[in-house]
Amino acid sequence: MKTKLFTIVLLCFFTFNYSQTDKAILKTVYKTSLTNGKSYEWLDYLSNTIGGRLSGSTNAELAVQYTKKELEKLGLDKVWLQPVMVPKWVRGEKEMAYFETSGLINKVNICALGGSVATPENGVKAQVIEVATYKDLEKLGAEKIQGKIVFINKALQPELINTFEAYGGCSSERYRGAAEAAKYGAVGTIVRSLSSRQDDYPHTGSMSYGGLPVVRRIPSAAISTNDAVKLSEALKKDKNLEFFLEMSCQQFDDVQSYNVIGEITGSEFPNEYIIVGGHLDSWDLGDGAHDDGAGVVQSMDVLRLLKESGIKPKRSIRVVLFMNEENGLRGGRKYAEVANENNEKHVFALESDSGGFTPRGFSFDCNELMLSKIQAWKPLFKPYLIHYFEKGYSGADIRPLKNDGIVLAGLRPDSQRYFDHHHAANDTFEHVNKRELELGAATMTALVFLVDKYGTETISNKEEIKD
Amino acid sequence: MKTKLFTIVLLCFFTFNYSQTDKAILKTVYKTSLTNGKSYEWLDYLSNTIGGRLSGSTNAELAVQYTKKELEKLGLDKVWLQPVMVPKWVRGEKEMAYFETSGLINKVNICALGGSVATPENGVKAQVIEVATYKDLEKLGAEKIQGKIVFINKALQPELINTFEAYGGCSSERYRGAAEAAKYGAVGTIVRSLSSRQDDYPHTGSMSYGGLPVVRRIPSAAISTNDAVKLSEALKKDKNLEFFLEMSCQQFDDVQSYNVIGEITGSEFPNEYIIVGGHLDSWDLGDGAHDDGAGVVQSMDVLRLLKESGIKPKRSIRVVLFMNEENGLRGGRKYAEVANENNEKHVFALESDSGGFTPRGFSFDCNELMLSKIQAWKPLFKPYLIHYFEKGYSGADIRPLKNDGIVLAGLRPDSQRYFDHHHAANDTFEHVNKRELELGAATMTALVFLVDKYGTETISNKEEIKD
Repeated sequence: MKTKLFTIVLLCFFTFNYSQTDKAILKTVYKTSLTNGKSYEWLDYLSNTIGGRLSGSTNAELAVQYTKKELEKLGLDKVWLQPVMVPKWVRGEKEMAYFETSGLINKVNICALGGSVATPENGVKAQVIEVATYKDLEKLGAEKIQGKIVFINKALQPELINTFEAYGGCSSERYRGAAEAAKYGAVGTIVRSLSSRQDDYPHTGSMSYGGLPVVRRIPSAAISTNDAVKLSEALKKDKNLEFFLEMSCQQFDDVQSYNVIGEITGSEFPNEYIIVGGHLDSWDLGDGAHDDGAGVVQSMDVLRLLKESGIKPKRSIRVVLFMNEENGLRGGRKYAEVANENNEKHVFALESDSGGFTPRGFSFDCNELMLSKIQAWKPLFKPYLIHYFEKGYSGADIRPLKNDGIVLAGLRPDSQRYFDHHHAANDTFEHVNKRELELGAATMTALVFLVDKYGTETISNKEEIKD
Repeated sequence: MKTKLFTIVLLCFFTFNYSQTDKAILKTVYKTSLTNGKSYEWLDYLSNTIGGRLSGSTNAELAVQYTKKELEKLGLDKVWLQPVMVPKWVRGEKEMAYFETSGLINKVNICALGGSVATPENGVKAQVIEVATYKDLEKLGAEKIQGKIVFINKALQPELINTFEAYGGCSSERYRGAAEAAKYGAVGTIVRSLSSRQDDYPHTGSMSYGGLPVVRRIPSAAISTNDAVKLSEALKKDKNLEFFLEMSCQQFDDVQSYNVIGEITGSEFPNEYIIVGGHLDSWDLGDGAHDDGAGVVQSMDVLRLLKESGIKPKRSIRVVLFMNEENGLRGGRKYAEVANENNEKHVFALESDSGGFTPRGFSFDCNELMLSKIQAWKPLFKPYLIHYFEKGYSGADIRPLKNDGIVLAGLRPDSQRYFDHHHAANDTFEHVNKRELELGAATMTALVFLVDKYGTETISNKEEIKD
């Protein structure tokens, strides 16, 4: 009860923790993004001229060079590349798979999971054992699994409103499935795509063999949701049907790559850093427009929109375009490592890595007091229909920065369509709406402006409202 | 101040105006829609098997028959057709238009506006006068307009967050442009499409000649936003360029059509009516999936979801599928006329006619006291990210029911993409996301359930919370 009362008093106090000028500045920021934004043009280039940007690929390096050059054009105080070694995995020839029923070939849509080994040169053909989750494998044991292809057929739960929650409920199947199946002598793994739709697109994504010795590793692929249903139906009629799988993916040695960083140096507290970022790498099947081209160009536009709106930040604002979020997280880890080595005081980090859809708000990884302070800014965002300010996950790339002194935040766009496109060939530019993307960039800029102006400590400690 | 205090007391009172059971019922409703919804399947049929459903067309009649049959399958208490005479306008051959610059032909994408007369059989060719709005015509006068084609080039304002507001700022250009231009002797009108995107789709929509005699009517077409820019640029270089326009549209006599109505008769107050609806007709260029196939199937699903969720309404709940919203509003007017003749007491009407996008909330046309009562239900909707409960416009079809005793409401989905598709050839099924559509149906059902349970009068007057 005491806590509740304290919170109410605090909320009343924080209610006045912004000014009329702030309202006007937010209006300018949104208007600038919607009438004179750059995010959509940048995304067009990243998606359509460059394309998919898998770590270690030439496209990923082209994206590094392009975004560095574009940041340099913005007249920031510094722009630089931060070296980081990244894994290089390549898909090779397009994968092929089918199952046989009564002598008929049923081709299915599959794709290798990122990090998978190839099949033998002429493919692998085996009977299939279907499970609802990799956790069922232990019960079945080697006797029923040995020599077979394991088919993990777990669908995203449609009743969950937040599709990221539904995705989270299935992602271990993709990540750990092959490692678990191999333990019992399986010769391959087929995982139902982590998609919220019924369609023909297989969705790739990272997987890991854990500590499994190289010789015991088995190929692992995702199958489209439509084909998962077909295969499951076919298995009900003929549990001895055979499945053929052919993949030629390869893992190479690590290669040199980079995080791309730009900075507006703070006028009052140059040694306090606020960062905003997304990841430059993507999977290779689509052009990575939503994951995470959108986050990249929105983050770039935050710095440009601050400048265009006449905002001179007190703290140093950095845009960080992380490399290798998808299959290694090397960029995120490297950035935190270097920040730590240099004793840089990071006070706030905001990541956009949930697609370029209409922004709904943010989730925050911070203490209650700071959350209350931020929530008191909600009325400022009401004209822009930004309503979600809740505790929650921030983002994979900025999480390595976590400590007691930093507020981590994630942009939360509408999530309904994200997993229709995520890691699949239909994650492409035409599925990003210009206005939705621009609203996201503006919403991020508005939050960065407020955090810079009012600090991440509570108001009584440090800074007063200045108008 | 007194009012403010009263509102606060009222809000505190209303805060408890729902129960734990309500929470559970909303959960059931959303889950049922997302796991066992019918709206998407119905929309698939309406869009892909039937297609565009312009009033008076065979498709519109097929849609009447189909939806009546589907409602009959639901085991409602009554399903019937309500006769209404509707206008019949047909587009005829695909329109053709170009402008000539330095002897070169530049074809442009146009479409006749609904209700326009045709051009002469071999088209019309004339110089063009560009205006920012039809209001500029008066200043120019007959001298500068006589014999020319008027080109009204007014773009939607991108900085407006609610795209309906941007649309509202331009819709008179389309509706009145030709009537105004004809007054000064213009031979045709070209209106920039009311689209939020730059692309090649022309967007049709209704227009009116007002009281203009038939012989003075001039053809009126919409031009795609890309071509509006091109034409405007070309006019800057050569103001004498000539524009060619060919259209063969035709207005026929009114034909018989119908509103489709289904009812669950109330258990306690059968003579109090709550209606939920959308419009069955659409423009002819696309398949009308967003406008307003979505509203139709969501409204149908409200009654089904009530039944599936085990809710037995106290009041009579009707789904009304209105005919002829797009170019006449005959269905909406007829429904209100018959309701009035029969002295039916309508207490609540909800329309879905803003696309099948992620629902954000509702706008209400009602008094402050009732709005406060409804706003007190907001916490029930928070898990579903429904946050918008504001005063505002309801819908064209239900507005004729307006009186002091009725609450009118409109579903408010995310509006960012709506005018990319509205009245254009790309208003098609593949642009509707299944989950977004289903969330809308669930959100409508939840509101109808609460309104039925707690009534539209304030709580102290009539009904107590029952759990």
